[in-house]
Amino acid sequence: MNKKLLYSCLAVALGAGTGFATFVMAQAKPDVLVKQRQAVMTLQGKYFGPLGAMAQGKAPYNAAVVQRNAGFLDNLSRMPWDGFDPSTKGEKSRALPAVYEDKAKFDQSGSALENEISKLVTVSRSGDEAAVKAQISVVAKVCGGCHESFRAKQ
Amino acid sequence: MNKKLLYSCLAVALGAGTGFATFVMAQAKPDVLVKQRQAVMTLQGKYFGPLGAMAQGKAPYNAAVVQRNAGFLDNLSRMPWDGFDPSTKGEKSRALPAVYEDKAKFDQSGSALENEISKLVTVSRSGDEAAVKAQISVVAKVCGGCHESFRAKQ
Repeated sequence: MNKKLLYSCLAVALGAGTGFATFVMAQAKPDVLVKQRQAVMTLQGKYFGPLGAMAQGKAPYNAAVVQRNAGFLDNLSRMPWDGFDPSTKGEKSRALPAVYEDKAKFDQSGSALENEISKLVTVSRSGDEAAVKAQISVVAKVCGGCHESFRAKQ
Repeated sequence: MNKKLLYSCLAVALGAGTGFATFVMAQAKPDVLVKQRQAVMTLQGKYFGPLGAMAQGKAPYNAAVVQRNAGFLDNLSRMPWDGFDPSTKGEKSRALPAVYEDKAKFDQSGSALENEISKLVTVSRSGDEAAVKAQISVVAKVCGGCHESFRAKQ
């Protein structure tokens, strides 16, 4: 199969709903941007949830899981921000207007998340369980603080 | 704020729909697993799409974007598999029964994706544009092959 045909088949097989619409578009549509940023939040929940449970003593501490999840979160924490494009203001989502009205504070919150997760990656390699749990709590506080300011209550 | 209260607030603020339900659950519910694995596909689309466009010559080649996206994809490619739990068979999704009926082949496809993306990470650091584009095409073929066998057409 030649390359052009291969990609055409892929585009059809994958469908616009998967985000592969970016194959042929310079700029993703607002609904796609919202779907992508919500996908990041879903996965941050998947990989941070167990760490929160460990920090709370609700799940047994597992250093290997913390290291793996911290690595995933380190990547995920850098993914959502370009999804908060002003073009998405009219889309259905829990993002509050403050995301766009107080962009400096929102960006600062985003950077804080990246930085604290980056520290979690480092600490998770130390073998110091207490320090790891303390840093998990710092990350939890950054998540919660940002949601408090920028996400509508359910 | 003490830790217990902090996590209680987080659980309320984030809501079960985000995947933070794992804070208090040992095993995610089938609908959550489906949402999480679909979130991975959405993000794989976000970060592979532009690479596909570059390999096709539909977008200008940008080595920095390829390196960044390859790193993200390297993480993402390891995230979806535990979401294909047999408990999700009854959930609405495009996953075909073959996912569970031919698990060996499905697992093999998953490993192939991880391996070829890992190679893309390495090649993306080489500065060899032709080799990078060739490896992007290999990854595209692995994506398409797996979808052909295991995902319902839209």
